[in-house]
Amino acid sequence: MNIRIFITGGTFDKEYNELNGQLYFKDSHLPEMLELGRNLAPVEIRTLMMIDSLEMTEDDRNLIAEHCMKSPEEKIIITHGTDTMAETATLLSEKIKDKTIVITGAMIPYKFGSSDGLFNLGSALAFVQTLPAGVYIAMNGRIFNAKNVRKNKLTGVFEEISEDQKSLS
Amino acid sequence: MNIRIFITGGTFDKEYNELNGQLYFKDSHLPEMLELGRNLAPVEIRTLMMIDSLEMTEDDRNLIAEHCMKSPEEKIIITHGTDTMAETATLLSEKIKDKTIVITGAMIPYKFGSSDGLFNLGSALAFVQTLPAGVYIAMNGRIFNAKNVRKNKLTGVFEEISEDQKSLS
Amino acid sequence: MNIRIFITGGTFDKEYNELNGQLYFKDSHLPEMLELGRNLAPVEIRTLMMIDSLEMTEDDRNLIAEHCMKSPEEKIIITHGTDTMAETATLLSEKIKDKTIVITGAMIPYKFGSSDGLFNLGSALAFVQTLPAGVYIAMNGRIFNAKNVRKNKLTGVFEEISEDQKSLS
Amino acid sequence: MNIRIFITGGTFDKEYNELNGQLYFKDSHLPEMLELGRNLAPVEIRTLMMIDSLEMTEDDRNLIAEHCMKSPEEKIIITHGTDTMAETATLLSEKIKDKTIVITGAMIPYKFGSSDGLFNLGSALAFVQTLPAGVYIAMNGRIFNAKNVRKNKLTGVFEEISEDQKSLS
Repeated sequence: MNIRIFITGGTFDKEYNELNGQLYFKDSHLPEMLELGRNLAPVEIRTLMMIDSLEMTEDDRNLIAEHCMKSPEEKIIITHGTDTMAETATLLSEKIKDKTIVITGAMIPYKFGSSDGLFNLGSALAFVQTLPAGVYIAMNGRIFNAKNVRKNKLTGVFEEISEDQKSLS
Repeated sequence: MNIRIFITGGTFDKEYNELNGQLYFKDSHLPEMLELGRNLAPVEIRTLMMIDSLEMTEDDRNLIAEHCMKSPEEKIIITHGTDTMAETATLLSEKIKDKTIVITGAMIPYKFGSSDGLFNLGSALAFVQTLPAGVYIAMNGRIFNAKNVRKNKLTGVFEEISEDQKSLS
Repeated sequence: MNIRIFITGGTFDKEYNELNGQLYFKDSHLPEMLELGRNLAPVEIRTLMMIDSLEMTEDDRNLIAEHCMKSPEEKIIITHGTDTMAETATLLSEKIKDKTIVITGAMIPYKFGSSDGLFNLGSALAFVQTLPAGVYIAMNGRIFNAKNVRKNKLTGVFEEISEDQKSLS
Repeated sequence: MNIRIFITGGTFDKEYNELNGQLYFKDSHLPEMLELGRNLAPVEIRTLMMIDSLEMTEDDRNLIAEHCMKSPEEKIIITHGTDTMAETATLLSEKIKDKTIVITGAMIPYKFGSSDGLFNLGSALAFVQTLPAGVYIAMNGRIFNAKNVRKNKLTGVFEEISEDQKSLS
């Protein structure tokens, strides 16, 4: 039973443009990362978009949801920028109930030697194989339920929303 | 609830000795790898030994088993050389029934830029958090039950033992 | 006889800010790079500024020139952004005649695994030890005289100014 | 005017064999290293042998000398294991007087992320372009005359032979 990987861009795949000194997107590094990890889990990769998640529109999110629904695989990994990862997780969790979807990303671009991307990808592949149907975020060794996670803008770290905060929001 | 990591050496932690051109063990790279992965799962690390798994004796394996039994944590990761990983897994699965133990390692030393170690460590941390009690091997995106795994000496790859092969052995 | 290294910033030292996804300057990576190269040439490092060379003002350039003049060392390396490296070289070559000054940099930040920085630094250290007094740019295995070099904005590559072009400019 | 690079193996090019955990030679990493350094100096590469310099015989050294003599280029870099680099340098300096030959290598294999190889290669390319005819060793930012260098077996570092030691030997 294959695992589907949908690529949407994010820090994972940022490159350095040496002509203008800006970061930009070219091709995804996912295949290279899976090769480095010598991955033997059966995966199928498809790039849906290559964008910074701050620029992700509602249309983009609906497109991702559609692909998740139509895909024959029941286990899906989505690589995604961290800034709006929680928003996408929320939308997917409302629309899709019968698949295991794990969203992951990186704090540092893969092309930087010091990226957390390979670690996160390894954990996402493990989580997607073992968790029951649901939408999750896998970052930095932890797993969060889509309904209970946010990115702390100050620390850059994903955290659970406490009961108090949920009742306030 | 903490995750316990026991270090036993293996390819993961091999260093290059520039005076004699040999590979050897010094300190473990696990802390550095967890930092690179920006790990936020609660882990406690302890080095039990620093050896090539081809040199691991029955006494060494019993020492590992003892530490697993005595440790208060119910979730345990063991880093281990790949050559005799399956033997250690078998011993542990006979002795320990009530904990989730995930053994992992690397095909290439971490200090080589091209190591699969970070990927494997990420997946081991995810598997140990989600799998029920039992002893497992996590390598290259896949998870194996201790009772049903061997390293293929020709390909270097871990694989499931088919029913036929089990009845023969 | 020591070699002086003045740091001014540039691509060499760009870091990735994981909170906002921008590149920025923190500390210089020069000490780390010299350690990686296991450098044994006697060097003294001093950071003069930490800026993108597009933002370098005439005052900044005069400050660099002053430090070169006052420094007791006769062999000086300057790390510098590539965009205005040729301008700084021109100014220094007008003001300083009795020292060997080699300006170098990188097309890709050092923190990106794929940087040319270590290669350029190795060559700059070699050029500064062997060349006669003068101001030079050392990039990507080549050496240019300050009076005869420009960065090709289209290709990003340093090149000699041909005689025709010089008479036109 | 081209620079000739002769490859003879050495630590530079050691690979990790994941089936048996030994270091071995496959293909040279020189082309990859020159690409990483974005080298634009005109070089021609030829592999003469792929061996540990401890296994280098007198025949091997004569073969290297012959290639240096026959090569049309007047500037030659030789990549070489560090253990007997000084012996090869001595032989070449006796046989060849009219070319600039720079021997270089690495303390740590290039495939290890922490190699000094790229730094040394950058400096060798610079030294070979600027030094007068002679045979030299370029390691870790320093340059040694073939007649006056040895590898300190205890520290692993190249050093000049002092006058006293030369008269004794």
